[in-house]
Amino acid sequence: MRILVLHGPNLNLLGTREPEVYGTETLAQVDERIRRHAASRGVEVEIFQSNHEGELIDRLHAARGRVQGVVINPGGYTHTSVALRDAIAAIGLPVIEVHLSNIHAREPFRRRSLTAEACVGVISGLGPVGYLLAIDALMQLAGRDPHA
Amino acid sequence: MRILVLHGPNLNLLGTREPEVYGTETLAQVDERIRRHAASRGVEVEIFQSNHEGELIDRLHAARGRVQGVVINPGGYTHTSVALRDAIAAIGLPVIEVHLSNIHAREPFRRRSLTAEACVGVISGLGPVGYLLAIDALMQLAGRDPHA
Amino acid sequence: MRILVLHGPNLNLLGTREPEVYGTETLAQVDERIRRHAASRGVEVEIFQSNHEGELIDRLHAARGRVQGVVINPGGYTHTSVALRDAIAAIGLPVIEVHLSNIHAREPFRRRSLTAEACVGVISGLGPVGYLLAIDALMQLAGRDPHA
Amino acid sequence: MRILVLHGPNLNLLGTREPEVYGTETLAQVDERIRRHAASRGVEVEIFQSNHEGELIDRLHAARGRVQGVVINPGGYTHTSVALRDAIAAIGLPVIEVHLSNIHAREPFRRRSLTAEACVGVISGLGPVGYLLAIDALMQLAGRDPHA
Amino acid sequence: MRILVLHGPNLNLLGTREPEVYGTETLAQVDERIRRHAASRGVEVEIFQSNHEGELIDRLHAARGRVQGVVINPGGYTHTSVALRDAIAAIGLPVIEVHLSNIHAREPFRRRSLTAEACVGVISGLGPVGYLLAIDALMQLAGRDPHA
Amino acid sequence: MRILVLHGPNLNLLGTREPEVYGTETLAQVDERIRRHAASRGVEVEIFQSNHEGELIDRLHAARGRVQGVVINPGGYTHTSVALRDAIAAIGLPVIEVHLSNIHAREPFRRRSLTAEACVGVISGLGPVGYLLAIDALMQLAGRDPHA
Amino acid sequence: MRILVLHGPNLNLLGTREPEVYGTETLAQVDERIRRHAASRGVEVEIFQSNHEGELIDRLHAARGRVQGVVINPGGYTHTSVALRDAIAAIGLPVIEVHLSNIHAREPFRRRSLTAEACVGVISGLGPVGYLLAIDALMQLAGRDPHA
Amino acid sequence: MRILVLHGPNLNLLGTREPEVYGTETLAQVDERIRRHAASRGVEVEIFQSNHEGELIDRLHAARGRVQGVVINPGGYTHTSVALRDAIAAIGLPVIEVHLSNIHAREPFRRRSLTAEACVGVISGLGPVGYLLAIDALMQLAGRDPHA
Amino acid sequence: MRILVLHGPNLNLLGTREPEVYGTETLAQVDERIRRHAASRGVEVEIFQSNHEGELIDRLHAARGRVQGVVINPGGYTHTSVALRDAIAAIGLPVIEVHLSNIHAREPFRRRSLTAEACVGVISGLGPVGYLLAIDALMQLAGRDPHA
Amino acid sequence: MRILVLHGPNLNLLGTREPEVYGTETLAQVDERIRRHAASRGVEVEIFQSNHEGELIDRLHAARGRVQGVVINPGGYTHTSVALRDAIAAIGLPVIEVHLSNIHAREPFRRRSLTAEACVGVISGLGPVGYLLAIDALMQLAGRDPHA
Amino acid sequence: MRILVLHGPNLNLLGTREPEVYGTETLAQVDERIRRHAASRGVEVEIFQSNHEGELIDRLHAARGRVQGVVINPGGYTHTSVALRDAIAAIGLPVIEVHLSNIHAREPFRRRSLTAEACVGVISGLGPVGYLLAIDALMQLAGRDPHA
Amino acid sequence: MRILVLHGPNLNLLGTREPEVYGTETLAQVDERIRRHAASRGVEVEIFQSNHEGELIDRLHAARGRVQGVVINPGGYTHTSVALRDAIAAIGLPVIEVHLSNIHAREPFRRRSLTAEACVGVISGLGPVGYLLAIDALMQLAGRDPHA
Repeated sequence: MRILVLHGPNLNLLGTREPEVYGTETLAQVDERIRRHAASRGVEVEIFQSNHEGELIDRLHAARGRVQGVVINPGGYTHTSVALRDAIAAIGLPVIEVHLSNIHAREPFRRRSLTAEACVGVISGLGPVGYLLAIDALMQLAGRDPHA
Repeated sequence: MRILVLHGPNLNLLGTREPEVYGTETLAQVDERIRRHAASRGVEVEIFQSNHEGELIDRLHAARGRVQGVVINPGGYTHTSVALRDAIAAIGLPVIEVHLSNIHAREPFRRRSLTAEACVGVISGLGPVGYLLAIDALMQLAGRDPHA
Repeated sequence: MRILVLHGPNLNLLGTREPEVYGTETLAQVDERIRRHAASRGVEVEIFQSNHEGELIDRLHAARGRVQGVVINPGGYTHTSVALRDAIAAIGLPVIEVHLSNIHAREPFRRRSLTAEACVGVISGLGPVGYLLAIDALMQLAGRDPHA
Repeated sequence: MRILVLHGPNLNLLGTREPEVYGTETLAQVDERIRRHAASRGVEVEIFQSNHEGELIDRLHAARGRVQGVVINPGGYTHTSVALRDAIAAIGLPVIEVHLSNIHAREPFRRRSLTAEACVGVISGLGPVGYLLAIDALMQLAGRDPHA
Repeated sequence: MRILVLHGPNLNLLGTREPEVYGTETLAQVDERIRRHAASRGVEVEIFQSNHEGELIDRLHAARGRVQGVVINPGGYTHTSVALRDAIAAIGLPVIEVHLSNIHAREPFRRRSLTAEACVGVISGLGPVGYLLAIDALMQLAGRDPHA
Repeated sequence: MRILVLHGPNLNLLGTREPEVYGTETLAQVDERIRRHAASRGVEVEIFQSNHEGELIDRLHAARGRVQGVVINPGGYTHTSVALRDAIAAIGLPVIEVHLSNIHAREPFRRRSLTAEACVGVISGLGPVGYLLAIDALMQLAGRDPHA
Repeated sequence: MRILVLHGPNLNLLGTREPEVYGTETLAQVDERIRRHAASRGVEVEIFQSNHEGELIDRLHAARGRVQGVVINPGGYTHTSVALRDAIAAIGLPVIEVHLSNIHAREPFRRRSLTAEACVGVISGLGPVGYLLAIDALMQLAGRDPHA
Repeated sequence: MRILVLHGPNLNLLGTREPEVYGTETLAQVDERIRRHAASRGVEVEIFQSNHEGELIDRLHAARGRVQGVVINPGGYTHTSVALRDAIAAIGLPVIEVHLSNIHAREPFRRRSLTAEACVGVISGLGPVGYLLAIDALMQLAGRDPHA
Repeated sequence: MRILVLHGPNLNLLGTREPEVYGTETLAQVDERIRRHAASRGVEVEIFQSNHEGELIDRLHAARGRVQGVVINPGGYTHTSVALRDAIAAIGLPVIEVHLSNIHAREPFRRRSLTAEACVGVISGLGPVGYLLAIDALMQLAGRDPHA
Repeated sequence: MRILVLHGPNLNLLGTREPEVYGTETLAQVDERIRRHAASRGVEVEIFQSNHEGELIDRLHAARGRVQGVVINPGGYTHTSVALRDAIAAIGLPVIEVHLSNIHAREPFRRRSLTAEACVGVISGLGPVGYLLAIDALMQLAGRDPHA
Repeated sequence: MRILVLHGPNLNLLGTREPEVYGTETLAQVDERIRRHAASRGVEVEIFQSNHEGELIDRLHAARGRVQGVVINPGGYTHTSVALRDAIAAIGLPVIEVHLSNIHAREPFRRRSLTAEACVGVISGLGPVGYLLAIDALMQLAGRDPHA
Repeated sequence: MRILVLHGPNLNLLGTREPEVYGTETLAQVDERIRRHAASRGVEVEIFQSNHEGELIDRLHAARGRVQGVVINPGGYTHTSVALRDAIAAIGLPVIEVHLSNIHAREPFRRRSLTAEACVGVISGLGPVGYLLAIDALMQLAGRDPHA
């Protein structure tokens, strides 16, 4: 099984950006955890980060036929991008949205997720662990046992 | 480690209620999966279901000193109960909210979660697997490795 | 045919509570009219009143397999209870909502009915007669002629 | 006793218009049922349909002194017509509003009834039976027993 | 100088309709006062009442070239009719809107006047006297002294 | 009969302020017209202008027992002052609100009149003539004929 | 192929009404262009204008069985008429809505089209050409080539 | 004189729950102060706490004929319960609402009090002293001097 | 201890203004009660009334260093004055807001208190007694027993 | 004459993406139809698709001096992009907005078009034919007859 | 060149009022900086502070003919005063609005500036430096180089 | 000291785009003024323009460690980009937002600035001079005197 992990805008600054909200772990460290977790379950992962809405859309399009599921943290585009939402709906793959912080407990404009409406589900507020849980969930959705 | 799992109103009908939304698995079957998953990780669970807002609050209060974390699916109270939200904030325990369906993709009145504002995080749309992931997440928050 | 009649919060005070809005007939007198009307049509009725949201939900759940239709006056829960609405949708029985007063002609917060969205229909503003008409309507929905 | 039954816009297409919402019975068949039901209770009825807001208002005005009650299905004017609402309030007769479908369970713009604010009560979601129940209710309001 | 006075829906019931709001003077009596007032100022008046939105629009269209100003009481159409508003804007004549009651002190839906946005001015709350004042105002707008 | 005419903030600039909206007549000229008009009807007037909300309130309070009616143009306070509105309601005199421009056809924040809700009526959009019409209207309300 | 073209309220004034918004071409001239365009494509047209909401609804009803498509410019009823919208939905014919001006670039209350929700599509802002394009589009929807 | 003091949901946790908002005094200590204060004024008190909306309603109903006034802190139900509001309105006793914290200075959803609309008055933000002041106020409303 | 009591706009009319809302006691009588109550508790009071927003702000500024607490009834400024709110926040003294009537049970625009957001607490609906209770509360906040 | 046709985000997936909404024709097929249609009218076209908001803006800027009109389908950016709207307003060319589906009949967030406010007109709901009609309309706006 | 600097309500408390928001510099110190800055550029300044809305308006009126530009910090009136806004629009002078703190990053009610809508521009969030920059900007608007 | 100046979408068209709003100066000329102004103060500047949201974010990220402050005109992204706002908050540098026109005096959708909420301050409506003032302000924030 092959999964695409997409990090949206500003996540490249993880660990140095507002650490009281997002923690001190860097994106490289998070990616390393994701890779190790996936390997332990026999899952291949592709990881991609971009600050460009268009590149995230391009990458989602390219995922068709290459992977069996997507984990996406759309960052600030979560709340404003109809285009990204349409891309998620268009590709016909199970997509799980992840947020490091709990979007329900932040500013009002962060509580509405446009993109989540096109996803299978959402995991928010659990920090980098959210990515690992999302991989397990995609395996289960595909009928595979992550703990086998 | 000991965890309380709280099921809110109408979840006792699981498996027979709107199966196209909530699936055909019964609550007894879900609880059995939760118990097996917890056992495999060396975690004790208490599971409780009620259709009464007051009983859910009472049970949250009683959890202090007994458990180290709570998984709650507040059902319809998610969107309307300030009292339940206050109870979650009052007990000083990490609480993770779980929804079987993706609340971001349903009726507008289901998109706002009052209770999630007082929780650590939210997992929604992943079916009964959400409960299992929430237990793993509470372990990680407590500094324990669910896969050890 | 067997029908459940559910009275919600504060209806036990009927006759003594704001009589200029709700009339001077007591709930016992209304229930007596309901029983006589049902009997004249060969319908059995169960009548239950509670001020507790959870008890109303429990009673709706228990109605499955016991009755062929429900008449409910959810009182103040009409406008605030997603849990009650979910219970109505869950039980798979025809439910008719009744209000003694015309909710369209009162305070703005009484104009929206959350529960009615899950019901077959609504009768409001016709006083206790609304219950009798609702029983006739449930008979017609079941293919029976109330005037036979 | 004499009652006016008013059908608003598009009801002349009943039976052919969106049958999954409004059923397959034609307006002529509904009117026949109304006439038979009224006759069985010794009530005279006048029935009138128009797609013109002004004609409905004219007819309401003309009802004063001729009838003792009105049953109205204002169709699309329910949600937009202050003029019709004012006419209902002006004539000083008991008016009951009927809707074939449950307006609380449809598009948001159909949930507000401007006209109902001036009526005695509302019956919605019970199909053509709603007209029959409304006649019974007007009899009861006039102190007559429809089942005598 | 020639002026058109247009009465909208339900004004034909004046004097009998909700007299605590609209007074006991009938429309015929009001029209008589308008005619006498106009005559005393050497102004010709045409007076027309209709409950039909379309007829009011037709009459406004026909006024071009016949009269030098219009006094309109659009009744319930005040708050809902874009079509009437467009007609007022289209005819290129000074139009003054009159309301018998003070629309700012009634139900919220009566506070917004769509039609007034296309009028020269508004007089509300002064009873039938408002019509007389509006005629004087149209004279002044045309450069004539009503008290000469 | 004695009438108080109150001009609110910025009206002292009349004639020089945004003449395309408010005309080129100065406040002194308007006041002269008001005085002449009142004299021709045997009415005494007091005229007062202030940019201070508190002074306008004081003057309204002082009007009790001195005058039989008030004409007020509250200027910018129209839309924000609950205190002025309360003063109008408190003094127990008939008050007519006048606006030089048509407040219904300007910016949205000018469409709501808080003060008008406590007045007998409103005349707007007719320029300085509005003051003269308001005096006539107060006479009529007091049972006197302005044209006698 | 036969097509009905419906012009709503105030369109009879075209060419003389606010020419800076609607142009100087009269409705007769527009209709002549429509007729010539249709003839060049072998399409028969019926053209009807009314200021009456009810007449527009009647005419839509009568179109069933007579024409294969409808072009409608609902004028001011676009934004306020649920009854017209229901008529469009009821007749089961493809309907295309046309606006001479671009409703997205005008007052806020003109941006919402209630009627368009029941149409196949909308053409706005292209002046009288919009009617011609709508006819071509109805032909294409019927599987005919307008340029054959 | 006899007064009922009702504590709503989560107040049983007082002293341990968010002490920076609610203080460190426990409910037992608060109740002791209430009892001593009442005794010093010759007033009998009944004190009851529940997390159940229905039990609070039941207790309000039972208060009729037993007490002459009620002090209620509805906790989280303040902002969401129409049923509790209806109960307060139904029992015909003077009820004063008390909040420990200043609800006007907290989250937006805490600023609206549904229940206060049916109360005589509200005291908020003064901590446990609010209960003592409310008892004094009920005495004054009953024509008794709390300091006699 | 020394306390400032501030009365806002229109309170000088107390006793004569809308007595069905505000009672028949005059401001002089209320002030006399305040003075007697304060004297009985050994508290000095300064009392000041103004209809001018600016004078109220000036007086609040001048209170620093002179008094240990403030009781304010901001009247109509309660709902609109950010400046008064800023003044309350600026002076660093405990301020309690008092309203004679229950602002939660009146018009919607009276339900929001801008000034209360900067106060320690609010007492509303208890008539002139509210001032006395507020003085007791300020004593308690200062660690003094009003009943000693 | 030369026209730029711009396709926005996700249109590259046309034919495979949600075919029940967008049809089964691929973008290459649509572009082929556009080219043939333009050729038949002697119009040159440039066609460009991008998922990147910035690239669409760049391309609009570059169009000045190269083309005489633009047809744009902004996809998901329609509803969210002020930048794209500003670009359309900035280039001083006639731009027609095209949508394959009827945006008035979809989710509420798709009903508002920010970009359309800066366009000449809009064609929506007519599928790929919309592009062909837009080319004809741009010709007419340029004073050329598309059917010559 | 001569410039008026107006300080609105509560600015007289600068340095002592909420220093974490507004800093510890007093208004006298700020005014001294403004005077020195102006002198270095050969500009005369008048500086005026008032807590009275009316006095600020009076002073703006009086500025006509005396100064060539105005710098205003309307304090709390920024968000509520239509009268002040009208005064700014009325005097025909360039006015620049200054705020010490960044109004876009504070409470929602501080984000809307009514007065700014009538100003040339706004400078906010830069502390007392904002006044100095505003003087430079007024010079530039008058065609003078502040750094000459 | 080194400062980054970022120009957002459509600013490359400056001087040719809507000159009545944005002036006739080109971006090259503005940049030349910025460079000369900075040089006169001993400040180095980097200037960058892009129509791509992602490129603006990338450039903000790259600014860390290279510059001591940022001047940004986010153009249309001001009102819609949470991602850009998050980037500003993430980089830990003082950022001042500049707008050529007064955003408070334009369309409603331009009045809310999402990005400004994360900036130190805002300068709007002063044309290209705003950039020069922003540089001076950044110097002052860094404790340097721009006029030394």
